[in-house]
Amino acid sequence: MEKIKAIVCLSGGVDSAVVLANAIKWNRDIIAISFYYGSKHNPFELEAAKNLARHYQISWCRVDITGAFALMVSNLLNHDESGEIPEGHYEDKSMSQTVVPARNMVFASILTGIAASRQINEIYLGVHSGDHHIYPDCRPTFINAMNLAIRTSLGLDGRKNKKNYVRLLTPYIHHDKAYIVKEGIKLHVPFELTRTCYTAQEIACGKCGSCIERLGAFEKNGIKDPIRYQTA
Amino acid sequence: MEKIKAIVCLSGGVDSAVVLANAIKWNRDIIAISFYYGSKHNPFELEAAKNLARHYQISWCRVDITGAFALMVSNLLNHDESGEIPEGHYEDKSMSQTVVPARNMVFASILTGIAASRQINEIYLGVHSGDHHIYPDCRPTFINAMNLAIRTSLGLDGRKNKKNYVRLLTPYIHHDKAYIVKEGIKLHVPFELTRTCYTAQEIACGKCGSCIERLGAFEKNGIKDPIRYQTA
Repeated sequence: MEKIKAIVCLSGGVDSAVVLANAIKWNRDIIAISFYYGSKHNPFELEAAKNLARHYQISWCRVDITGAFALMVSNLLNHDESGEIPEGHYEDKSMSQTVVPARNMVFASILTGIAASRQINEIYLGVHSGDHHIYPDCRPTFINAMNLAIRTSLGLDGRKNKKNYVRLLTPYIHHDKAYIVKEGIKLHVPFELTRTCYTAQEIACGKCGSCIERLGAFEKNGIKDPIRYQTA
Repeated sequence: MEKIKAIVCLSGGVDSAVVLANAIKWNRDIIAISFYYGSKHNPFELEAAKNLARHYQISWCRVDITGAFALMVSNLLNHDESGEIPEGHYEDKSMSQTVVPARNMVFASILTGIAASRQINEIYLGVHSGDHHIYPDCRPTFINAMNLAIRTSLGLDGRKNKKNYVRLLTPYIHHDKAYIVKEGIKLHVPFELTRTCYTAQEIACGKCGSCIERLGAFEKNGIKDPIRYQTA
């Protein structure tokens, strides 16, 4: 049987790395795509994504969409030099400064165009329930709405069993990061290659919302996070 | 009363020019945005868009998203050098080679991110009923689905009367190009500044689906299209 073709949106972080490991387990014919969109931590993320793709020996593409984000406002973005990445938990109000509005919608739209023009049926995103609090475009309501937008944008609404469907899949949307790490451990994901920190420094800060959530997820699994931290 | 802020997605063609003229009539505070996405006719479109914005003395931005389309396959795109722009009507099967899958979804997603991060409430797209036949992402079902995706991506589903809504508006989705030209005549749109042809040549070819539809729209209104054609 022919393998199902899939795109894995690979940020280089823990979540998309585990999604990738699962897609490989599920025998998908995979191309990993990473976006360069101008966030402060983007260069390190892309390096991690490239290393993960090399580890798994799959095709990898870097898609530069900095132009699309040039007019957007967010402390996460490089061109806003005054914007500091806040320290503290995701739940803190300050973390909302790191929201890039509609980011997943932009990613999913572009991946839909690529999938549709290359007969690829599945697009995997590593969103999870821990993101729901401050990122609306990581919630099930958005993913469902987006899947409808995808179908209608390709003229596939109302037709079934077509070979040329494109579907957005989010295997961890109802799970938190601790669960994802647990899955990753089972699948022998090389966590040492991943990158999560939101800051523009090479060694993870250990203080931003992203680092704190990651460290907590490893702690809940009773294992030490294999990457280096400035706080260690 | 404060003006409602709006983005007009300005391709440089007839449809978005008339939408712009209407948005001005409706007293919107407008920024016109044009995408450089690597289509063969893009440079001429952008020149037209810039000239239209200058004519109306409104802000104009060019957003370069060629990277987003680099992995897509379509004869309309520049990087596919072997792909010829077909001659003939939109209804012809050959015109489907010019479909860029999910193009309006990509445009709308990026404009949503810009609108949300700049407190802009409305996004105007110049899609019309003549596009429905071969472009699914110009149909009402897609625009409705996309509006739901936009609301949910921003966490605005289920909330009403909020100041920070973002809405995709398509005033001509139920009308054809002849109707749009009629509206444009009433509004004194400078059609001589617009650009429609799909080919990579400066003077409009008069033979591609785009040119034929445009010429027909002017003919139905009993006036001569003011731009130059190679076929004239």
